Parts: sequence; C-alpha cells; structure tokens
Amino acid sequence: MPSPDTDKIIERLARQRVETQSWGYVSTGTRFKVFHTPGTPRTVYEKIDDASLVHQLTGIAPTVALHIPWDRVEDFPKLAAYAVKSGLRIGSISPNLFQDDDYRLGSLTNVKPTVHKKALDHILECIDIMKQVGSSQLSLWFADGTNYPGQGDFRTRRHYLLEGLQAVYAALPDYAVILLEYKFYEPAFYHTDIADWGQSLLLCQKLGPRAGVLVDIGHHAQGVNIEHIVATLLDEQRLAGFDLNSKKYGDDDLFLGAIDPQQLFLIAVELVTAEDDPDGSVRDAAHKVLYKIDQCAMVEDKIPAMLRSVTALQTAFAKALLVDRPLLHYMRQEGDVVGANDVLNDAYETDVRPILAMVREKLDVPSDPLRAYRDSGAQAERNKTRVGTPAGW
Amino acid sequence: MPSPDTDKIIERLARQRVETQSWGYVSTGTRFKVFHTPGTPRTVYEKIDDASLVHQLTGIAPTVALHIPWDRVEDFPKLAAYAVKSGLRIGSISPNLFQDDDYRLGSLTNVKPTVHKKALDHILECIDIMKQVGSSQLSLWFADGTNYPGQGDFRTRRHYLLEGLQAVYAALPDYAVILLEYKFYEPAFYHTDIADWGQSLLLCQKLGPRAGVLVDIGHHAQGVNIEHIVATLLDEQRLAGFDLNSKKYGDDDLFLGAIDPQQLFLIAVELVTAEDDPDGSVRDAAHKVLYKIDQCAMVEDKIPAMLRSVTALQTAFAKALLVDRPLLHYMRQEGDVVGANDVLNDAYETDVRPILAMVREKLDVPSDPLRAYRDSGAQAERNKTRVGTPAGW
Amino acid sequence: MPSPDTDKIIERLARQRVETQSWGYVSTGTRFKVFHTPGTPRTVYEKIDDASLVHQLTGIAPTVALHIPWDRVEDFPKLAAYAVKSGLRIGSISPNLFQDDDYRLGSLTNVKPTVHKKALDHILECIDIMKQVGSSQLSLWFADGTNYPGQGDFRTRRHYLLEGLQAVYAALPDYAVILLEYKFYEPAFYHTDIADWGQSLLLCQKLGPRAGVLVDIGHHAQGVNIEHIVATLLDEQRLAGFDLNSKKYGDDDLFLGAIDPQQLFLIAVELVTAEDDPDGSVRDAAHKVLYKIDQCAMVEDKIPAMLRSVTALQTAFAKALLVDRPLLHYMRQEGDVVGANDVLNDAYETDVRPILAMVREKLDVPSDPLRAYRDSGAQAERNKTRVGTPAGW
Amino acid sequence: MPSPDTDKIIERLARQRVETQSWGYVSTGTRFKVFHTPGTPRTVYEKIDDASLVHQLTGIAPTVALHIPWDRVEDFPKLAAYAVKSGLRIGSISPNLFQDDDYRLGSLTNVKPTVHKKALDHILECIDIMKQVGSSQLSLWFADGTNYPGQGDFRTRRHYLLEGLQAVYAALPDYAVILLEYKFYEPAFYHTDIADWGQSLLLCQKLGPRAGVLVDIGHHAQGVNIEHIVATLLDEQRLAGFDLNSKKYGDDDLFLGAIDPQQLFLIAVELVTAEDDPDGSVRDAAHKVLYKIDQCAMVEDKIPAMLRSVTALQTAFAKALLVDRPLLHYMRQEGDVVGANDVLNDAYETDVRPILAMVREKLDVPSDPLRAYRDSGAQAERNKTRVGTPAGW
Repeated sequence: MPSPDTDKIIERLARQRVETQSWGYVSTGTRFKVFHTPGTPRTVYEKIDDASLVHQLTGIAPTVALHIPWDRVEDFPKLAAYAVKSGLRIGSISPNLFQDDDYRLGSLTNVKPTVHKKALDHILECIDIMKQVGSSQLSLWFADGTNYPGQGDFRTRRHYLLEGLQAVYAALPDYAVILLEYKFYEPAFYHTDIADWGQSLLLCQKLGPRAGVLVDIGHHAQGVNIEHIVATLLDEQRLAGFDLNSKKYGDDDLFLGAIDPQQLFLIAVELVTAEDDPDGSVRDAAHKVLYKIDQCAMVEDKIPAMLRSVTALQTAFAKALLVDRPLLHYMRQEGDVVGANDVLNDAYETDVRPILAMVREKLDVPSDPLRAYRDSGAQAERNKTRVGTPAGW
Repeated sequence: MPSPDTDKIIERLARQRVETQSWGYVSTGTRFKVFHTPGTPRTVYEKIDDASLVHQLTGIAPTVALHIPWDRVEDFPKLAAYAVKSGLRIGSISPNLFQDDDYRLGSLTNVKPTVHKKALDHILECIDIMKQVGSSQLSLWFADGTNYPGQGDFRTRRHYLLEGLQAVYAALPDYAVILLEYKFYEPAFYHTDIADWGQSLLLCQKLGPRAGVLVDIGHHAQGVNIEHIVATLLDEQRLAGFDLNSKKYGDDDLFLGAIDPQQLFLIAVELVTAEDDPDGSVRDAAHKVLYKIDQCAMVEDKIPAMLRSVTALQTAFAKALLVDRPLLHYMRQEGDVVGANDVLNDAYETDVRPILAMVREKLDVPSDPLRAYRDSGAQAERNKTRVGTPAGW
Repeated sequence: MPSPDTDKIIERLARQRVETQSWGYVSTGTRFKVFHTPGTPRTVYEKIDDASLVHQLTGIAPTVALHIPWDRVEDFPKLAAYAVKSGLRIGSISPNLFQDDDYRLGSLTNVKPTVHKKALDHILECIDIMKQVGSSQLSLWFADGTNYPGQGDFRTRRHYLLEGLQAVYAALPDYAVILLEYKFYEPAFYHTDIADWGQSLLLCQKLGPRAGVLVDIGHHAQGVNIEHIVATLLDEQRLAGFDLNSKKYGDDDLFLGAIDPQQLFLIAVELVTAEDDPDGSVRDAAHKVLYKIDQCAMVEDKIPAMLRSVTALQTAFAKALLVDRPLLHYMRQEGDVVGANDVLNDAYETDVRPILAMVREKLDVPSDPLRAYRDSGAQAERNKTRVGTPAGW
Repeated sequence: MPSPDTDKIIERLARQRVETQSWGYVSTGTRFKVFHTPGTPRTVYEKIDDASLVHQLTGIAPTVALHIPWDRVEDFPKLAAYAVKSGLRIGSISPNLFQDDDYRLGSLTNVKPTVHKKALDHILECIDIMKQVGSSQLSLWFADGTNYPGQGDFRTRRHYLLEGLQAVYAALPDYAVILLEYKFYEPAFYHTDIADWGQSLLLCQKLGPRAGVLVDIGHHAQGVNIEHIVATLLDEQRLAGFDLNSKKYGDDDLFLGAIDPQQLFLIAVELVTAEDDPDGSVRDAAHKVLYKIDQCAMVEDKIPAMLRSVTALQTAFAKALLVDRPLLHYMRQEGDVVGANDVLNDAYETDVRPILAMVREKLDVPSDPLRAYRDSGAQAERNKTRVGTPAGW
C-alpha cells in the first residue's frame, strides 16, 4: 500500500455518503424504447424499498432523492415516515419542468407569462414538499432550450430564467440550498439555456450564497476536463453537488464507473484534497457537496446497477485517499512531470477491494454488496410480487 | 450568376426527387417527452395525405417511405392504391428491430436464436410487404449494440448479423436493393454493431452488389467529413442513399439545412460532380442514390418542417450545380488553394431562390411552398378534423 | 431583399472595423512542418505593408495587432509612425508567454517564482510598448496548462494566475483594457488553465471593469454553441473581443468563413441585435467589441487568405443586418418555430455581394478586393523583392 | 486473483513484445514550441542507445522503429550492426512524406506527377533501407489532405494514392508487409485522405494480403469505440499493428495509459481473446500484430515517459489476461449485463504489479523499471555528455 494511515482512510470511507434517486429504480429508456425488466417498482413506496435495500447492502446510501410529480403522493409526511421506518431519509427534491405540453417551448424561459408562472408555481410547490419531508436541497434541472436558430432570444430567455430563480430563492427556507444543474444538450438540440458550468455559476452568483452548481458528469462536451471544473467550483465555494453516472457519447446515464473510471478517480482526488485544504472555506465547501447517483438502467437490472454505482464511487474515493499527497507536492515543485503522474498512477493501480471490505465490516454490511444481493433472493421476490404496471418517468 | 447553362440546371432541379418518410409526419420526441401538436395524422392513410400535400406543394417528393409495424395495415395493396390515388408511390420499407421487448439485447445480433429468428422473420415479412406495395428498396437500420463493456462479444455479434443479412439478401427479389445504415451511437451507448460507414460497407461487400450503404447525415462523430465519405462510397459504387436531416450534437434529427447548410452543399457538390463523371459506373451509381428525408419534428409543426427539408435539399443542389467546375479544376491544377475555395464560395453565396422559382414554375407548383401551405388553410383543417390519438412511434 | 432600410445597412457596414494581425501575414504551420510561400514578409515593417494593402483593398481594416517579441523593434514610436504613414494604426498588443524554454511548465502559473516574475515582467513590458505605439488593448492568451494528470495543482495555478493578472491590471493605463482569451486545449493536452469562457469571465470579474473575455471562434469543444456564449457575455457586458478564424476539428485557424459560415452569421446576429438593444449598457458593450482576425495561412497565400477573412466578416454582418427583427420577434411571440427560423434563413440565403459592392463604392475601394489584389501585381512584386529568410513565429 | 493459470499468464507476458520508436527519444513539441530537455540524443546512434536501455530495463522492447530521413545514415548495415550490438534489432521503417516543401499540397495525392514520383521514390528508398537493416515492416502514414473545401478532388486524390501504393506493394519483398495508418485530422484541417480505418482497409483490400491497417490510438474522433474497430479488423484479419499513445483531445501523443487506461485494457481484451480464438486465421492475425509506441514527450523526460508507456501496455495485457473468459461467456449467454461487465471490472480492478514483478524476474530485469532508471544515474550521465544540438523531427 503506497500510502499513510489506513485507519484514517477507512474512517473517511465509512463516513462517505451518497444519495440514490428514486427514478434510478424504475424502467427508463431512450426515445426509441423503454424496456421493462421484471421486479420494477410500481409506486414510490416500492422505490423507497429498493433504496432502503441498497442502503442496507452498502451502509452509505441513507438518503433518497425524489422527483415531483413522479413521486407525488397525497400525504408527504407519511411518505417521509415510511422512509425513516425503512432506515432512510428523503434527500433532495427535483421538480419536473419538461414533461408537460405547456413546456414545449420552455418553462421559466417561456415567452408566455402563464407558462412561466406555472413552472414557478410548481417549483414553489416542491419547496413546500421539501418542508413536509424534511429536505433541505432543491435540485433544479431546466430542460429549457431551443431546437433551431432563431427560435428564441438568448438574452430574453436568460432574463426570464433569472427572474424566476430569484423568486424561487426568495421562497427558500434559510436552511435550504439550490443546486443548479447545467447540461450541454438534450432535449434541446440547438441551445440549452444553462449549457455549462459558467452559465450556472453566473446565475448562482446573482441569487446568493445558498445557490451552487450541480455537476452531472455526463453533461459536458466531449473531452471537457471535469476535474478542472470541479476544482474551480471548489475554489469559488460554489460546488453544490454531483449527479453521478458515466458516459461515452451524449448524456448516456450509464452506471458510475462503467466508462473511464480514471476520470472519476481524478474528480475524487480534487475533492479529498479540498477536504483537507488549509483554507477553511474551501474545506467547508468540500464537505457540503451532495453526491447523488443519477443513472438510468436501460437494459440492465436496476438494483445491481445501483450497487455498481455506489461501489464505483467508493472505489474512486478509496484510491483518491491513497494518493501520497506530500510526494505529489514534491514532484510538482521539482517539475517532475512523469514523477507527479506516477504518484497518481500508483494510487489508481492499487486494488482497493481489501480496504473496502474493511470499511464494510466496520459498517456491518456485506463485503460484496452485489454478490449479497444476488444471493439474497430479493430480485426473485420482487419479480414475483411486483406485477402490474411498473413506474416510469 | 457565376455559372453556365441555367436551363440545364433548371432541368436537373426539376428532375430532382426526394422521398419523405411517414414517421416524419407524426409526433416524435425525446426520451423526456413527446409533444403533440394539433392536426397530427392518426393513421397511415393520413400520413400519406400529408406526404401527398408535400408533393403537391413541391413537385419533387413523389414517394413516401413506410415503417413496419408503425404503418402496418391489413391490406397493403389497398394502401399502395391509396398512395397512387394521392399522387404518390410507396418508397422504401423499413423494418422495426428495436421496439419489441425481445430486442433489449439485440435483434439479429442477439445470442438467443429465437430472437435472431424473430428479427429475421420480421425483415422477411417486410420483403413480402415490399412486393405487395411495389417497393424495391429495403432500408435497414439496426439499433443493435451494447451499453457496457463486456456486455456482448463484438465478433460473435458481427457473425450473427452477417448470417442474418445473408438470409435477407437471399430472399430479396432481384430488382430490389438493401440500404444498410450505420450510426455512431444511440440507443446503444457503448458500442453499435454497425457504427460507421466502414462497418456497413464491409457487410455490403459480403452480401453482394445489390447492397449499399445508407448515409444518415446525423450519424457521425463530431467533425467527421461526410462529403469525403460520400465521395469514397461513390468511388466504390456503394452509396445507396441518404437519410437527410441536420444536427448540432448527437442524432438530433432536425430538419435539413437548419444547422451548417454549407455541409449539405458540399455533399451535394460531390453528388452532382459524380453524376457527370467520365466513368460510367460512377455516373450510374450517383443517379441511383435514394434521397430520403429522416427528420423528427419534436417541437415544431410537421408539414412546415418537411417543406423546409425539401427546400433545403433543393437549395443545396441548386448551389452545387452553379459551381464552375472547369474553373475549379483549373484552380486545383494550379495549386491555388484560396482560388479553388473561392469557386465553391461563389456558388454558395448565390441566392438560388430565383432559380428555384423557375424550377417550381416548370413543375407547376407554388413558388414558395411554405407560404402556400400557410395560406392554404390545410393546417387549420387538419387541426379541426384530426381529433383523437395521434399516431406515433 | 427581405428587409428594411438598405441605406442604413450600407452605412453600418461602411463603419465596420476589423483588425488584422501581423502574424497572419507570415509563414506558419503545424508541428509537422512550416511551409514557406514566396513573398512572405521578413520584418514587421513588411507585415505592416501587407496590412496596409489589405486596408487599402477593403477600407475596413485600419489597425494591425502586434505580437511581442515577434514584432519587437528598437524604436516603437518609429514603428507606430510607419504604420500611420501606411494608413494604419497599431491595434492590440499580445505578449508571448509560451515560446521561451522557461515556460515549459507554465508562465504566470509556474511554480517557480522566477518564471512567474519573468512572465509578469514581459507583460508589463508590453504595456509599456502599448504606451509607445498608442495601443489601448492588451490581448492576453495563456498557453498555460498541463499535459498529464497530477502534473500541476489546478487551484494553486489559478491563484498564481490571478495574482499575476492583478498586477497586470494595476499597471494598465486607465484608458486601456485587457482582453482575456480562453482555449479548450493545445498546446496543453490535459488541462488548460483558462479553458473556457467561464474560467476567463471569473478572472475578469476579479480584476475589474476593464477586463473582458476574448472569444476565439476556434477555441471550443465540438458542438459548443458560440453565439449563445456571445449573447451571454454581451448580457454581462464582458465581451471584449474576438479572434476570428474558422475550424472543423481542433484550433485549425483557417480563414474566416471557410467552415460553417452559418455559425459566423448567427454570431453576427447577436452582435447587431445587441447594438440596437434598448439597454444602453448592452449597446455600449456591443459597440466596443474588438474584431480581430486570427488565422494562420498554412498552405495558402497569406494576403488572399486575409482578404477572404475580411470579406467573410462583412458577408456575415450584411446578412445579419438583413434579418427582419420585428418579424422574428413576432414569430417568437407566436411560438412559430419554423417561422422564426425562416426569418433568419431568408436573410442568410440572400446574396449580399451587391450590397457589399455598394459599401465598397462608398468606401472608395475595389468592389472585389480579392480580384483587385490578383490583378494588381502586388504578389508578383513581393515574390521578387522579398528574398531571404521569411518572418515566422 | 479472479482467474486461472498464473503461470500461463506470466509466460504470455514474458513473451510480450513492443517496439519503441527512435523519434520517441528526441525533443518534439507543438506548433508553438519545441522544448528541449537535457540529455536528448543528438544522433540515431544515441537514440538506439536509449532504446537499448529501455529494453534492458523492461526486457520486452527488443526492436526500434526508424524514420527516414530523421534516421538516415550513410551506412545502414553498420547501423543495423550497432543495434544488434546494443541488444536490439531494427523494426519497422517509416518514410517521411510531409516535411518537404514539395509536399505542401500532398505527396502521393499531389496533382503534380513530379511530386507524386518523388514521394514514391522516397518510399521505394525506404524499402531498400528495409533490406539493408533487416526490416520486414513498412509503416506508412500519409499526412495528405486538404485544408479548405474545394482545394482538392477527393476521388482523384484517392486514385493517385492507390496507384502509388500499388507501385509500393509491387516493390515490397515477399516477406515484408505494409502497415497503413489512418488519422482523423492534422496536419490537414478539412479532409485527410486516409481519415479512418474504413479508408485504410479499402486500400489494403486493393493492395493484397500483405497490407494491413495500423491503428494509432490517438487518431480517432472523440468517442469512437476503438476496441470495436480492433475486433473488426481482427475478424477481417487485417489488423497489422498499433501506434500506441494516449490522448484527451486531438492527436495528443501522450505516453500510454496517461488518459483513460480502461480503454487500453478493453483493447487488450480483444487481442488476448483473439489470440485464443478457435479460428486459426484469427489467432494467426492476432499473433502477428505489431505493437509500436508512438508517443511524443513534449514537456517531460523522454526515457521515463517511454518506460511508462511500456509498463502501461504490460499492465493492460496483464489485466486482460486475468479476465475470466468462461464466466464472461456465461454472463453473456444469460443476458446478465451487469454480471458481464463485472467480470471485466474484476480483472481491471486487480493490482497486477505483483504479477509484473514476477514477469520481470523471469525476464531478469528490474522489478520497477522506472525506479531502476532513476537510480541508475543514466540520465545524469546523458545530461553531461550529450551537449550540442539535440536531434528533432
């Protein structure tokens, strides 16, 4: 093992937390087809059951994100209580601003004041739900954009968006935060109003300190150096959280670690380094980051895919914690390029499964969550009992 | 006007033919949402009505592509007769190999022989439909691919695919051709079995002379020089046809000419040049190319979008025909790089709407098809009469 | 002609100004080879001669950008006087922070204080040169970045960079501005310290109001919507200027308009729209934008290439001015997507060469600058007289 | 350890061979700057010394590729003898078809017959050199392409290229092979004559069985699935070899494994699988593949960078050999997507440094080549003795 205090690393990994999202347990797909797999949840209660199982198997996924209206119920406090009974808490709340016919040409950015208001009201409703379920995180993704040159006026749309967000911010309880997501493209195919981290950050600056940028790993142009963005947002103390998944092409929403796991490791290096930063405000910012899974199991089983994501995140952080940072610092000071890269490589090439087994022992969960799931019979039971229409988007 | 015989150009443009596709008239969307617009066809008959109207307004769209099962009817000869009565003929036939639960892990490439056979049988059924409707073009797109490293064996899948295609080829009437499409990605997010023109061409070589490559303009990685591919396929006499649309990011399926119309012009230059090639086999190959629209109107009205695509194709070809090819040849021989580019630029910068007006006069159609459509009241009538569930994918 | 007051358009186009850059007249190339073409300038004086000729032929290129040390002379006031005698003024000044062995691992971002200081001193020297030549624009491009994961610490480098820039800003005369460029990649191949407009804008915010973002059209990831960035920077009143060129792949530095001229048109639409904005501060910001050519003639003749760039810019603006903005606004309000796009398309498809001929008549320059150059014998004379080692980078 | 016979794996890894290239030991850079580092070879003999050292330290790099004219000497047999004395053999020979002024508009594709002939003659000279140095591999990369639309005629250029290649093939000794490289772009910025594997393979088909495709890992558009191309070329028995390096953006030529090492692993999986294929012709094809390093150390020390490349290749193959292929096959048959991916992931997450230490023990080389190099004093000695002008491109 190339690095220092294993106990400290294990302790840090035992404290790691990741949020799974309710819509990661249901059948999702592409514009061509949604494939249903057996055992898929039919209700938000069953989604919580699955999130609960993932937490039981991993010990680090104690919250579940909800999406409204997909997870709307009559009685939200009852839902929150169900979560608690299942060993979970409700995490971030996401409004849906893209699935109503009214949103065809935009939600908050819509030229029609009625649509703008409808979108705003829906977000305000979500803030109300946050209060009912004990959530302090409003996770906002705007699908708003245009498909053709000329379709919309960029600056006017930006003003409408800001205006709406300011109203949202004003309505936010003072213990709560906004996570503002950006996305390169899709479903808009010519321009997206919040297309990159710069667009998101500028809006957050105008809102106030409780608005931060949400980085979805899959929402960048090809080649973009995401760890550099992460470092910059940490430096600005505006990194609010992550939507975690992996991709090779567009916004593919594959489970974490499936494609280019080195990238995830390099992102994790920035985060664990910031957690120990001499600057307290950077440290604080790093510790507040929300880690949320946001994958879509399109052809594969949902719970195994979710377990792979959680495990991939642990793997990346375990390796990042193994980086010999004093040696890395030395190599950088010396201008030894190969040497500096080698320090990262040494950590990356380490097999961290033994460490993760120790973490899991400490957490009192199975040492191999995926195998434990397979051996548990849980999938077979779900396949048998969950008949009828599966939940979807 | 920088160039020669206007009469000849008008004559060529009057002979231009483009196929519209039945699924371009219905409501389509993204994985997030399908927006319905009023007046959308509910049946294949209404799709043919719309294709017929597009042909009436443009004079160059006399065929319509069908997709099975979206356009399946009990009585195909009756459908073909309806098309003829509407001034159309049925064009290419596309099987659907991606919307059945069985195809989750592939159609012809599936490891399960039963699924392979099901896919094959469906294609053979489409050949049967071709015979019933008088079509001679089988247009094959395989969504087959994998989402994760390891999910499938590339070479085994390739063998299954070839085997299936050979059975299809054997069943093809000798007057008919296969157009074999490739796609960079989507809906498969790790690998696509026919990912690029090279994959498609190799399969066509193994099938025989009546198999050619179908180029969807939107199915390439960013930056790929499509006109170079087109030239190469013409050189090999294996360019069977186009799926025409435009894109900025993934496979966006915007109407033609919306993004980077210069690219379409450069593609057209290759085609009109090949049509006059000294080599008769290149000339023949160029004249046999199928031009098929393959756009999806996601937020905009369908018929206007289709009219824009048809017009954009005419525009590109009109400009391509204006290229002063002898001067271009001279500049190339001289090694005058700016001069050669200038020859293309002169043609591209020309306003070809006056020429297209003359073409349309000759074709006895309105000089501005889009305005004519708007003034016709056809949309209002459709909005009123077409109530109930619109057709979709 | 689809649009309003032709006189006003001509008047606007006659007022258009573009800066050519001294290094656009010399032999440049790729890492593989620099090809020399005959007649290339050997000194900065000859570069000014060429810039002067381009201005004589176009009437809209009265300034020339210098790059230090490529254009270093003993007597800068004499150089400025030479420019004036040639009908030009010296425009923006660019320091060189990438061609000294010391900058191998960064300039201002270098971990070595001596290298940081050397870079800073060089920029301060350039400010001094600005004063001597009457320039008010400091154009900063940092090649700084890393080639390998781990090589540098993102946040430390960012702090060094900011610190240096603050010293530069403090030394800037109060009539002068900083244009801060960003670049996706190259020559750094893992991360670039100022990689995108967001990185640049954040630094400008920290510097003060006289620092703005410089947009090089070729410095983005594939697919990035540049006109959207331009609109955002105008909205923030932080768009300082452009480096104009075109590209298909990386930072190809082809002459303007060679690839995807529609994109340039869409950028121009944002600018001419902002010039008429109801908000005076947006208007002012739009009028202050510096348009600088930044192409590299690698295989083609330099002056013809430069003339093509200038002409392409005029073409884009002429078309942008033809956009029927009231009709566009109406279509947007109506939610008519095809209609709105059609308004842009109508302007784009217009042949603006007749308008540009009128503009040139007004400017008393040849109606076809490229042809006038070819007919002038200027190239032949250069080929004959400019013997010996050509200038380069 | 998830997998079978460790002895067999060690034995396979001990048999692994990789070719280093002479131009990987010299100072190279970008169009902006070539940074020289101390100790760089000044002559081809010193390059061979460095290659020899790399082989001494790794035991698997017994051949060195030469590039003509960079490595031209008066007496090639003497050079070959020097290599043998140094424990090496001369490997593949690469002609240079891009660094002469005559090649500005193409080499074999040039419209000028004299330039075409010059290029052909140079390649024939290289075949002669092959005979003198005992090489059986002609490695061909054509920088040919165009920078602007219209500059060249795609099909004419293709015919010239084929014609030239046929003459080359005819001159090739019957024990020798052609490796034909493709490249997406650079130095040509509009089109490259051999832009992708399809272009290369079609030419190879026309040449004959001793022409195969050379895959440079850095020569693809963003996102392209290279392992799928590798599998296809193996299936066609036309994979001649690799140029090994890594990249994040363009053709960055970083050392192997620096960016996305998972991709290299996935490529290796295809190769080790093909080496055991039931089909003997696939097996043979796989065993004949040439593995050649093709990196450029731009900011880092050359020998350490080369050692990292060699080690990265060993790492990828060691992990690929650990894949439990029967289990993988089972998971695929079962349609267990997560399970199949997990099999690969298990191998990838294994720390193979202990295995590689055993391999190196067997090869009688240091267990950590990079550390051994650092401890050897070889760099310091080079820095001291190699004064004067370093070799370059």
